[in-house]
Amino acid sequence: MSSSVSPLAPKTVPDMPTIAGIRLATAEAGIRYKNRTDVLLAVMDKGTAVAGVFTKSKCPSAPVEWCRAKLKGGKARALVVNSGNANAFTGKTGRASTALTAKIAAKAVGCSEGEIFLASTGVIGEPLDATKFDGVLGRLAEAAEPGDYLAAAKAIMTTDTFPKVATATVKLGKAKVTINGMAKGAGMIAPDMATMLSFIFTDAPIAPAALQALLKNGVEDTFNAVTIDGDTSTSDTLLAFATGAAAEHGAPKISRASDPRLKAFVKAFNQVLANLSEQVARDGEGARKLVEITVEGAKTKTSARKIAMSIANSPLVKTAIAGEDANWGRVVMAVGKAGEPADRDKLSISFNGIRVAKSGARDPDYDEAQVSEAMKAPEIAIKVSLGLGKGRDRVLTCDLTKEYVAINGDYRS
Amino acid sequence: MSSSVSPLAPKTVPDMPTIAGIRLATAEAGIRYKNRTDVLLAVMDKGTAVAGVFTKSKCPSAPVEWCRAKLKGGKARALVVNSGNANAFTGKTGRASTALTAKIAAKAVGCSEGEIFLASTGVIGEPLDATKFDGVLGRLAEAAEPGDYLAAAKAIMTTDTFPKVATATVKLGKAKVTINGMAKGAGMIAPDMATMLSFIFTDAPIAPAALQALLKNGVEDTFNAVTIDGDTSTSDTLLAFATGAAAEHGAPKISRASDPRLKAFVKAFNQVLANLSEQVARDGEGARKLVEITVEGAKTKTSARKIAMSIANSPLVKTAIAGEDANWGRVVMAVGKAGEPADRDKLSISFNGIRVAKSGARDPDYDEAQVSEAMKAPEIAIKVSLGLGKGRDRVLTCDLTKEYVAINGDYRS
Repeated sequence: MSSSVSPLAPKTVPDMPTIAGIRLATAEAGIRYKNRTDVLLAVMDKGTAVAGVFTKSKCPSAPVEWCRAKLKGGKARALVVNSGNANAFTGKTGRASTALTAKIAAKAVGCSEGEIFLASTGVIGEPLDATKFDGVLGRLAEAAEPGDYLAAAKAIMTTDTFPKVATATVKLGKAKVTINGMAKGAGMIAPDMATMLSFIFTDAPIAPAALQALLKNGVEDTFNAVTIDGDTSTSDTLLAFATGAAAEHGAPKISRASDPRLKAFVKAFNQVLANLSEQVARDGEGARKLVEITVEGAKTKTSARKIAMSIANSPLVKTAIAGEDANWGRVVMAVGKAGEPADRDKLSISFNGIRVAKSGARDPDYDEAQVSEAMKAPEIAIKVSLGLGKGRDRVLTCDLTKEYVAINGDYRS
Repeated sequence: MSSSVSPLAPKTVPDMPTIAGIRLATAEAGIRYKNRTDVLLAVMDKGTAVAGVFTKSKCPSAPVEWCRAKLKGGKARALVVNSGNANAFTGKTGRASTALTAKIAAKAVGCSEGEIFLASTGVIGEPLDATKFDGVLGRLAEAAEPGDYLAAAKAIMTTDTFPKVATATVKLGKAKVTINGMAKGAGMIAPDMATMLSFIFTDAPIAPAALQALLKNGVEDTFNAVTIDGDTSTSDTLLAFATGAAAEHGAPKISRASDPRLKAFVKAFNQVLANLSEQVARDGEGARKLVEITVEGAKTKTSARKIAMSIANSPLVKTAIAGEDANWGRVVMAVGKAGEPADRDKLSISFNGIRVAKSGARDPDYDEAQVSEAMKAPEIAIKVSLGLGKGRDRVLTCDLTKEYVAINGDYRS
């Protein structure tokens, strides 16, 4: 963990309500860290639906493989998350360690192993000693209470500088339902669920298939539109749990994602995802600037996304922003290297609303002093207009600072 | 320019012979830098063949567009290179500036504008005042002499910390021919000719089409297999000039790249390209380690290249190397994110010949102290064995240091 909190951290932390059917507990299992919690157990009531999306890495971690397999059952009774060791690239030992953790958790909670979901985050390539969970999970299952979500978010942190939580309350039918979420991640963040863990909990009664569809749609413009360094983790996991407890006070049971009664819920659900994924960008390793990149006028939204990601992942663009330099030449470079349709002489670029380039050249009204002043802001919005079509997209990233290099140059040792 | 020479710079600089038919001159045109040369004029004898490969950026610079168009003629009489301003993304002004430079050069040398080749490197997005060349190029054309290639290499530097030259002498038929090359580039280097300028000169009598084929084949495993930061410049240009003067002392005229008499020449030509491209990696901005990544056992060579590039461009791998940390977990991550066929449980990884991972887990013989000692070397060889097929490839890169961030965080301002 970094010693100081990111200057981009949210100024306030929301009060997190409890969610009927969910109980939480954390402990110090001593996996890697000293004097901090490093294991989270979430216990769910019977009947809780589960959905998940994972890293697209060709070399996923053992816990990712475990969750993918168990997701087919659609039901969850417990989630075990440890920080400090990702249990990734640990071969047979990794699979054995995952199976043992699930066995210990199933016994502690009193359910089948197929209802246990697992996530591990931290260093990769080191064996995880699952026997450390023996005893710990039993005590946690007894101690679990409806809830300190902030404490839970703290237990899953690695290089994060602040815990990430978000909440929303919304009507489903005539009943009030709650959505709580937490996330961790700070480096190795890229689209396709890169080095990031996030867990969403709700009391809404939503069937597994519908929840899966909501989650898949929801991540597209939130978690999948955030990049810190373009590196994709072997462990990215986003799980959503719906206990259905709100059915007791009148919430309708939802079996299809297209159900019109879900409209407000979907909006709130996506806001929670957006809020959490923005917090991940705000806690990018070494970040001093939150950077929003909007590409408009592309041939398609997909094309706009590729160009926005090319800009967001360019080390030269990111270091320029760290240096408070409105170096739009490098933005042009990143547009050009994306390989997507672009016409140099139609490009316009603005930084925080100040247009610096127009029709393929420096804006005639360009005022270096004005732009330099604008670049001092902690939040930088880069807008690129391609002038080719109606494709538009937006991604979030952060700057690339010496601190990023320092954090990652001696993380393992 | 950085103040100190890269610790990875070659210990010796070769004596560069002259090449019949080529004359060089440099000057201080004051484009951007003070008290250093920033313009190079190379004058070629009539009949010189030219070939070129360029950036694949969708937003290429005006000089790149100029060269591409003029390459069709196949003949060159002069090359003008300026450093300090890339004349990229400068709209109509850029095209006008390029045309004016060519006009001034054609007048100075006494040839048509179609025989003038241009390259500009430096900041992008700033108009280039071509009137600064007026007078300068005329004086250079008069002063041009057979040759100080090292002085020429110095005039084209930007953030480079040392000039890059290479030379080879080889038999073509029974005649001795010479190949001289120079390059610049230190950041914004990625495959597909990224922010890099390189010029090759030979007295061999090779027709334009054959020279073009040689060049295209030659860059594939040399310049296109080098990456510093994954960023692709708008200005990458590699031009080769063959004066044909060696025909006077018996070298056969070559019209096809497949001519068997070319065998030794091709080998020497590719060695010059390999030498120069390795020097570019050795001068990566802020680099303290030269990193060679070999991927073997891939399905195909193309697949091996993609995986090697994914590793080479991973900020997390690069920062780990900067921290002298044999973090093979991050290598696994980079293999996984490449999207190419890979089987986690068949992966083996070594650093400088020491195997750290085997069959998808830490090598049983792993010795942290031994590996840590090996990571202190200035040259790091990472080998990844996928165990799937016979595809093999190799790329060069460097580490990612705080110095890279410092150089690029205040380059323009």
